[in-house]
Amino acid sequence: MDRKPTILVTNDDGIHSKGILALARALREVGHVFVVAPDREESAIAHSLTLHRPLRVEKIKKNYYAVDGTPADCVHLGVNVLLPDRPGLIVAGINKGGNLGDDVTYSGTVSAAFEGTLLGIPSFAVSLVSRSHFKFDAATRFAVRMAKHVIKHGLPKDTLLNVNVPNLDEEEIKSYKITRQGRWVHNGSGVIEKTDPRGKKYYWIGSGQFIFDQKKDTDFEAVSRACISVTPLHLDLTNYGSIRLLRKWKI
Amino acid sequence: MDRKPTILVTNDDGIHSKGILALARALREVGHVFVVAPDREESAIAHSLTLHRPLRVEKIKKNYYAVDGTPADCVHLGVNVLLPDRPGLIVAGINKGGNLGDDVTYSGTVSAAFEGTLLGIPSFAVSLVSRSHFKFDAATRFAVRMAKHVIKHGLPKDTLLNVNVPNLDEEEIKSYKITRQGRWVHNGSGVIEKTDPRGKKYYWIGSGQFIFDQKKDTDFEAVSRACISVTPLHLDLTNYGSIRLLRKWKI
Repeated sequence: MDRKPTILVTNDDGIHSKGILALARALREVGHVFVVAPDREESAIAHSLTLHRPLRVEKIKKNYYAVDGTPADCVHLGVNVLLPDRPGLIVAGINKGGNLGDDVTYSGTVSAAFEGTLLGIPSFAVSLVSRSHFKFDAATRFAVRMAKHVIKHGLPKDTLLNVNVPNLDEEEIKSYKITRQGRWVHNGSGVIEKTDPRGKKYYWIGSGQFIFDQKKDTDFEAVSRACISVTPLHLDLTNYGSIRLLRKWKI
Repeated sequence: MDRKPTILVTNDDGIHSKGILALARALREVGHVFVVAPDREESAIAHSLTLHRPLRVEKIKKNYYAVDGTPADCVHLGVNVLLPDRPGLIVAGINKGGNLGDDVTYSGTVSAAFEGTLLGIPSFAVSLVSRSHFKFDAATRFAVRMAKHVIKHGLPKDTLLNVNVPNLDEEEIKSYKITRQGRWVHNGSGVIEKTDPRGKKYYWIGSGQFIFDQKKDTDFEAVSRACISVTPLHLDLTNYGSIRLLRKWKI
């Protein structure tokens, strides 16, 4: 009897990215893999759903579907339309670039795992912390181990895992750590002003200097020490610690 | 001596929306108001930053700037470029439609307050829970009270407020409640499949049935009982409760 679960693989770098191809290939060991991913790079689109226009799907080859939408769209279409049965696991990645600290709120990769969790399916995101010369082997192998574990044991309620892997050879990686989300410390303006050939101004976002806080047990710390970081993120964003304080307010 | 703070007002319904105009006008009682908002409706774009193309700004009139980007872009440009000094408060809204439960993760309105909080500026989002026939008066007046309070007392660290106002006349609203984020219960497929005139399939997201959980103290509960809901949301998404469990795992 075939007990292999269906696995949905997606990303935000697009369906032709090396990271998703390596991930999908490796996960075949664990389940029936279906890839549903954006037809182009969708970085920093965050947790968008496309509601204002219809979506198109192109079947690239067996079990591979390209969508002209966001990672969250891909999860919706995969789960509700394209897959033959409800997936037992959703894995997003392997993202070319880390999703550490506050970056998780912008990350299309993390948002795909978020969306899967909203739909009640155990989900995790895998990102490779580098800007170039990506080494996918360690991340791929860890994703397989994680997939096996999550399929067997599930995940805490309403919780996804955000996995960040240092861009090292496997033997250079020390271990994995369960971490908390760190914080970027913003340093200076994040916008550059320029003038176009017709004398009109335009602006580029994202040029600021950012350094991360030096706190203990964060995703940053783990990765900077050559460890894989695994951060459990919650769908519920409520700051419960502040509720008592706010209830004393007289607004 | 002029002690009025600078206030940045934004939204995701666009700079010409009635909600932002009512809000901006009313907040003049509290501070020097600058409006920096998308030049068109940007709903469900979530916490996007525009990184792949430059942004243009159009000055509509004194203190009103339209940006061809997202609410998060508007906060960045407002704080880093357009405003004469660092704002003491950012208010996003008044959104035409509630941002309750899991919807906060898709909401452009909430994301603007999120972005402001990331930049270290006290921020809150205001949404009107209705699909039509919007009554902005109660929401506007509560936003003014909230603005005064936040300017005086600040907000808990790394925390924004998500305010949802029932679409009622002011005298019908009972009170406000400090709440936690509720959960939608998804019920059936959220995707509709159609065929275009040339025989090709396309898909629309967002047609599923959703009902909210019946839990106590949620944003849903408050609004359904004719109360204004104020939910403190945290930048840190870590599910701390699950860290101990995950540390026992052997992945």
